[in-house]
Amino acid sequence: LSVNPFWPRIFYFLSVSLLGFGVLKAIKPRTDSFKPRNLDLFFTSVSSVTVSSMSTVEMEVFSEAQLVVITILMFLGGEVFTSMTALFISNLKQKLRRFGAKVGNHSHPENIINGGIESGIPMTNSNPETLREDDHSRKFLSFVVLGYLLAVNLIGAAVVSLYISFDSTAGSILKSKGLKLFTFSVFTAVSSFTNCGFIPTNENMVVFRKSPGLLLIIIPQILLGNTLFPPFLRFSIWVLGKVVKKVGKDSDYLLKNTGGIRYPHLLPSRRSWCLVVTVLGFLVTQVVLFLVLEWNLEPFNGMNSFERIVGVLFQSLNARHAGETILDISTISAASLVLATVCMYLPPYATYLFLKEKEEEKHLKKRRERSRKNGVSNIAYLSIFVILVCITERENITQDPLNFNVFNIVLEVVSAYGSVGFTMGYSCK
Amino acid sequence: LSVNPFWPRIFYFLSVSLLGFGVLKAIKPRTDSFKPRNLDLFFTSVSSVTVSSMSTVEMEVFSEAQLVVITILMFLGGEVFTSMTALFISNLKQKLRRFGAKVGNHSHPENIINGGIESGIPMTNSNPETLREDDHSRKFLSFVVLGYLLAVNLIGAAVVSLYISFDSTAGSILKSKGLKLFTFSVFTAVSSFTNCGFIPTNENMVVFRKSPGLLLIIIPQILLGNTLFPPFLRFSIWVLGKVVKKVGKDSDYLLKNTGGIRYPHLLPSRRSWCLVVTVLGFLVTQVVLFLVLEWNLEPFNGMNSFERIVGVLFQSLNARHAGETILDISTISAASLVLATVCMYLPPYATYLFLKEKEEEKHLKKRRERSRKNGVSNIAYLSIFVILVCITERENITQDPLNFNVFNIVLEVVSAYGSVGFTMGYSCK
Ligand SMILES: [K+]
Ligand SMILES: [K+]
Repeated sequence: LSVNPFWPRIFYFLSVSLLGFGVLKAIKPRTDSFKPRNLDLFFTSVSSVTVSSMSTVEMEVFSEAQLVVITILMFLGGEVFTSMTALFISNLKQKLRRFGAKVGNHSHPENIINGGIESGIPMTNSNPETLREDDHSRKFLSFVVLGYLLAVNLIGAAVVSLYISFDSTAGSILKSKGLKLFTFSVFTAVSSFTNCGFIPTNENMVVFRKSPGLLLIIIPQILLGNTLFPPFLRFSIWVLGKVVKKVGKDSDYLLKNTGGIRYPHLLPSRRSWCLVVTVLGFLVTQVVLFLVLEWNLEPFNGMNSFERIVGVLFQSLNARHAGETILDISTISAASLVLATVCMYLPPYATYLFLKEKEEEKHLKKRRERSRKNGVSNIAYLSIFVILVCITERENITQDPLNFNVFNIVLEVVSAYGSVGFTMGYSCK
Repeated sequence: LSVNPFWPRIFYFLSVSLLGFGVLKAIKPRTDSFKPRNLDLFFTSVSSVTVSSMSTVEMEVFSEAQLVVITILMFLGGEVFTSMTALFISNLKQKLRRFGAKVGNHSHPENIINGGIESGIPMTNSNPETLREDDHSRKFLSFVVLGYLLAVNLIGAAVVSLYISFDSTAGSILKSKGLKLFTFSVFTAVSSFTNCGFIPTNENMVVFRKSPGLLLIIIPQILLGNTLFPPFLRFSIWVLGKVVKKVGKDSDYLLKNTGGIRYPHLLPSRRSWCLVVTVLGFLVTQVVLFLVLEWNLEPFNGMNSFERIVGVLFQSLNARHAGETILDISTISAASLVLATVCMYLPPYATYLFLKEKEEEKHLKKRRERSRKNGVSNIAYLSIFVILVCITERENITQDPLNFNVFNIVLEVVSAYGSVGFTMGYSCK
């Protein structure tokens, strides 16, 4: 009978998608000659809000105004923004409830308990002093997340536009495509931070593969917005606590009570470190395998060593989970593709390290139990999807086995599941 | 410092394999014209003992005497036989320990504790009366397993030879291949019961695809020896308890104390039922999908409806984990192959049902936790193997993408991992 947090979320994504579709539809596309179909526009809106970057239409059909709308949709759909909003709402609810409890004496005890559970405050902290500290810290946390979100996106956009104004190659590409520097920078910064992976060019990042500087700017943007968000959030809280005396107490409280706060991106210290190690571990493995196997890959022709290394780093990173590409991934060797598929499958905060800390034991155990349970059923769902696609595509599989083979189907299904957005495309070889 | 049960097992399999190799080498093959290489003989011996049926040499090169040796190797390597042997040894150890404790008073308490854990008796049952009942029941259990093992194999062999002496088609096939009825029947019964999957013909069961009677005899043999062993063992214990008054108490004790006995194939009632439902569920799914998608498969030409249905049932069942085949599996559609790969991956006693029973809760939780942990690392190992094969075969993958593609590699790796023994072969299309 209690409201499942699943439904508000679905409602939010659906209504933002519909609104986005309406606005995209109302605005004129870039040229009058080609008008995207309604379905394509709706799909673009959903892809932006769910940050999956699966597109059925080329990006350059969108006008500047439409690109701005897509930027806003990606921003509104990003995990950092939605989780921050949930945090602000829960804080507000809590405030109203406390206020109500102070005014009226006949409030139902049940409501308080349910409210407490819903807003994530464990009932053990029933001490009024602790409760106040808890409220205060949660408020502090929500503003830290807000600051982080704005800072990373604004700085990212600024650095991208600064870089492009100095790099004549990248600048001329934008000019030839009729893209404004400002729109492109903000779009790319937001898309990378939310790990959506849309880029306003038809070729995604392929046209920028010889601009290692731009890739090196986008790489931290992608990391800060997804897999490395928890460690850097923790780091921000720690730094603020040290620098600003006023919030020292809140900072300490947050860093120590990660479990009680129940903000899903605030992780304990040890787990944050494990996350950093895991992310870097997978990245390094991917990069090494990629460099060894595909040094002389055809798309790398005309790129020097530095450009290749940065390109490989960029491409490997994008398997988790932004999905931006600097090359046609169907040209990559099978071994790298299998590893990329594994990486796409992994949830953002997967940590495969032995982690044990007494205080966190219990909390972690639950979380791990849950993630393992999910692991099994996720594989079941993925298998069912792959089998269904194999059934519907069985004509193509027999007639065109090079383009329609089981591994390509698995890769596409996993890519969609992890909302990465990689695709093998259709080769005419 | 304690002896890990892993090492005695490895030592056992290794020494039996080496012994088997020596005996196979000493016996003359069927013809003088072709002598299998030493490596092939050793591989055949290892494949028999590990019941994986991966073969590098055609089966018809082996003489009758060599086939008998392979039968013995499969019998010695089968899970029911090895687990029974472990049970007998642990019972004997226990007896000696109790005797030693009675004679000498200065036995180390540590030894008793270690011994108790090793032989699987929980220390909570320290009451002498319970201990005696426990010993008695374990002895009863070991003889039930022995009886089950002998009965199923002997009856299976008898029914196979009886059937073939009435089916002229199957009989003439054996005659044309120069195989004796007795050798063939015992070999097939043991190979099916242990889920090894070797058949003394070069074509495995393909030559018998139009003998539905033979397939219907082998199907229960495969089930009784692997996935449905625990339910039928439980059933046997229950029936014996009802019929033979003398063992009624032991039977009751065994059925109630499945956890305490720690014989891995004696499962609680509910879990046994879940296992039956899971096995049948996967089997029915596979059969339905197979029938719908491949009714007009080329190898089915000239087979009537009944033969096709039995053939499909047989082929589907063999994915878990016997690996006998009535058709070239590379002709099967991708959807069925993906499902077969999932089935090959599943451990024999996988139960994907919601099972909750208060008394068994704790015990199950541990087991499930463990199986889930294994699930994650198994997938990691499989991914690593697939990536390694993709690296070593990268030349073939680029030059001959139809025969060497990622899905074929995944299928072979999973097949080897589940010791099924399916292979896609090499097609010259
Ligand atoms: K994405
Ligand atoms: K097998």
